[in-house]
Amino acid sequence: MCKIEERKLNLLMDLYQLTMSQGYFNGEHKNATATFDMFFRSIPDNGGYAITAGLEQVIDYITTLSFDKEEIEFLRSLNLFNEEFLNYLVNFKFRGNVYAIPEGTPVFPNEPLITVEAPIIDAQLIETMVLLTINHQSLIATKANRIVRSAKGKGVMEFGSRRAQGYDGALYGTRATFIGGADSTANVLAHKMFGIPSVGTMAHSWIQFHSSEYEAFKAYAIQYPEACTLLVDTYDVIKSGVPNAIKVAKEVLEPMGKRLKGIRLDSGDIAYLSKKCRILLDNAGLTDCKIVASNSLDENTINSLLDQGACIDTFGVGERMITSKSNPVFGGVYKLSSVDIKDGRGYIPRIKISENSEKITNPGFKSVWRLFDKETGMAIADVITLKGEIIDESKPYELFDPIYTFKRKTVTNFKAIELQIPVIVNGERVYNSPRVKEIKDYCINQVDTLWDEVKRLINPHIYYVDLSKDLWDLKQELLMNNKK
Amino acid sequence: MCKIEERKLNLLMDLYQLTMSQGYFNGEHKNATATFDMFFRSIPDNGGYAITAGLEQVIDYITTLSFDKEEIEFLRSLNLFNEEFLNYLVNFKFRGNVYAIPEGTPVFPNEPLITVEAPIIDAQLIETMVLLTINHQSLIATKANRIVRSAKGKGVMEFGSRRAQGYDGALYGTRATFIGGADSTANVLAHKMFGIPSVGTMAHSWIQFHSSEYEAFKAYAIQYPEACTLLVDTYDVIKSGVPNAIKVAKEVLEPMGKRLKGIRLDSGDIAYLSKKCRILLDNAGLTDCKIVASNSLDENTINSLLDQGACIDTFGVGERMITSKSNPVFGGVYKLSSVDIKDGRGYIPRIKISENSEKITNPGFKSVWRLFDKETGMAIADVITLKGEIIDESKPYELFDPIYTFKRKTVTNFKAIELQIPVIVNGERVYNSPRVKEIKDYCINQVDTLWDEVKRLINPHIYYVDLSKDLWDLKQELLMNNKK
Repeated sequence: MCKIEERKLNLLMDLYQLTMSQGYFNGEHKNATATFDMFFRSIPDNGGYAITAGLEQVIDYITTLSFDKEEIEFLRSLNLFNEEFLNYLVNFKFRGNVYAIPEGTPVFPNEPLITVEAPIIDAQLIETMVLLTINHQSLIATKANRIVRSAKGKGVMEFGSRRAQGYDGALYGTRATFIGGADSTANVLAHKMFGIPSVGTMAHSWIQFHSSEYEAFKAYAIQYPEACTLLVDTYDVIKSGVPNAIKVAKEVLEPMGKRLKGIRLDSGDIAYLSKKCRILLDNAGLTDCKIVASNSLDENTINSLLDQGACIDTFGVGERMITSKSNPVFGGVYKLSSVDIKDGRGYIPRIKISENSEKITNPGFKSVWRLFDKETGMAIADVITLKGEIIDESKPYELFDPIYTFKRKTVTNFKAIELQIPVIVNGERVYNSPRVKEIKDYCINQVDTLWDEVKRLINPHIYYVDLSKDLWDLKQELLMNNKK
Repeated sequence: MCKIEERKLNLLMDLYQLTMSQGYFNGEHKNATATFDMFFRSIPDNGGYAITAGLEQVIDYITTLSFDKEEIEFLRSLNLFNEEFLNYLVNFKFRGNVYAIPEGTPVFPNEPLITVEAPIIDAQLIETMVLLTINHQSLIATKANRIVRSAKGKGVMEFGSRRAQGYDGALYGTRATFIGGADSTANVLAHKMFGIPSVGTMAHSWIQFHSSEYEAFKAYAIQYPEACTLLVDTYDVIKSGVPNAIKVAKEVLEPMGKRLKGIRLDSGDIAYLSKKCRILLDNAGLTDCKIVASNSLDENTINSLLDQGACIDTFGVGERMITSKSNPVFGGVYKLSSVDIKDGRGYIPRIKISENSEKITNPGFKSVWRLFDKETGMAIADVITLKGEIIDESKPYELFDPIYTFKRKTVTNFKAIELQIPVIVNGERVYNSPRVKEIKDYCINQVDTLWDEVKRLINPHIYYVDLSKDLWDLKQELLMNNKK
């Protein structure tokens, strides 16, 4: 076992969460409760939607957060915290409610993916881990979904652990690629932890180790006759790799009654080489032998390869998926939306103004709805409402753009689904996450409710996310009375 | 404590490492030893050098790698491995030698950062974790070093945990930012684990929670009079934030005999606002009040801010440093370089040819040297040699470009330092990593030996990394006799 695994994440938080918490604790409203929204402002890669992921780990974290003796000792050593507050942390257990949009759901900017309603201290302490978890996994699930769409039904294998940003980047990243649509992974531990099928071929070192490429292929075929995929680019794909692979298929596998399962290309002009390889394999009667391609693939290179008629059956996708290389940050934020200081007035909505207009928040304790057309089953728009508002399906509902308010649309014959569900109530988990494979299937179903125009990779249609009339009115009022 | 922390990383490997290992185990040269090099091919952001980091975690991993009952059970369930091989894994302990360039050293493409000399199975099993660890931390240390250089002596705080790619992305990422030159972090756990000073101000939620911005500032100042940095952009920096901060400095802090330590800007036109803020603060006699800026900073925005004469004392850098956003992948590879099949011939060098010429490897068991000018102390060039070659400082040494071999230079009056040192011998750790602060100081010293032309951020001079004559001759010979 590795020392690097011996860790506790309780103190994975920003120092200000602790100093502010002590501030609340010592202040005049220490029993205040508050609501916070976790949401994002723009979709990675200018896509039409994101896929939310990471909720299971967020629930795990929140319901088990506590501080042990050693952690308290460390905090004491900082000379920032008084004994009353440290003692409060000794007994800490999260006491609030958490509402969340289930993992695998397509989501859009400004929608609260997670809403926390809790004592202000509890809500403040979980900020970094909620953001870190959802930001990371949603980023990778969103990227994987783009890559899988570009592959148009051909297989996508996750190959990126060696280039991930840290161990969790590889492990939870692989979890997210699977939710987003990848079929399998090279990562054995991700298989063990999440049940994601692990797959693999061979490294160049296997070929180099043996006295010749042919001997290397032969040794592998003898050991793995059922699942023999040979890496053909160590020396020269066309002159050496494929002829040796065919020779092994004929001389080693066929006498055993087995077929060569595949070849893998990992360098060179993949479009050109794959077509050449296909001809060589077909001419040798190996029409069932699959061609796997890897080497810096993403949705753009895959699109281009398929456009060129590349003969590829499965894509092995590494660094560009596991790091979302073209857009490696999911900019989720966690913002206070209302406060109840227990003076009998209940939740008072709060807003954050900003010189950057897009950074102005939606105030109040909120919910999110998705409207589906009853006839087609397709998603029409999302509406952010105040908590407790009901969207009445029996009446026409008027949508309007929150900025260009003259843009209006009345929808009828629709079904309104509240996207957030309670996952933690009074500090206790009330939601059991589906298995990762079920989340993946749910994701496929939900993405199917989006119009093709929203799903296209370049310049997608901007899906409507509107505010209810009540929420819009509240926001305008607070903007006008912006307190200094 | 969080469930997400209960993990073992032993199976964090690609499936092919296990299938190939079983292949070696069942093959005719199961006792063969091999050498592998971990190196990279290009510097992130087209920089002049990278900073290597992550070695401490690599040593931890290699010296403790083993497989417990549950892990063996899982592998058995895959129906890929025979009992002999599983039994071999039960008793597995790494038995080889590892040579490495110490953390914090400026390094260049094609240099073996780590060389592994071990039984072929041992060397193969550690591939993914060696790459993942060094790729991640070197990426972030390299980025941090660029950002710190751009700040020209002003402070850089790491603020990015919430946008990191997973928990390790935040933790080991922060370790790497500190090695690369950042001064402090917001991350409390990184402080506890690595001794990196944690710092913090306040979130917008603190301001929003209170009945007014002034009340929020006042409450904070009373609690933290010694270290009061106020976030001034929740409503309006110039009309509200700074006037309220000044009021608190005068009415709350000064009567206590304290000074306002700083203000923080997190949105809007930072260049413009910082200059305005400086004037307002100075006019109020708060000339010692520092201005901290955050909001999507990196080396480019920092350069631009300083160019515009922005009045910023410290930069809080988040997502763009902790993910190396502009270049989020460090493309390190792990390649076999020689094999000893125990037939009495010793290590036989191996090469990997490729249709992509830059992917051709340097064969043989190797070492790396750095030549320093004795007069100036500055680094002249690096030379990759075969293991055992000695660079004789008493004689002129002729450098030549490995591709454009007519480009030659003879150096005299130099000191030659072997960059790799043994860190694991016969499976046992023989190297104790310095504390992270010492690694950081070493990094500063080593970067100081590079000429400014290598250090500049845009279009740097390409530092010489040459091959010794013996290595170059060996490579040519293998390329000519490229076996099929």
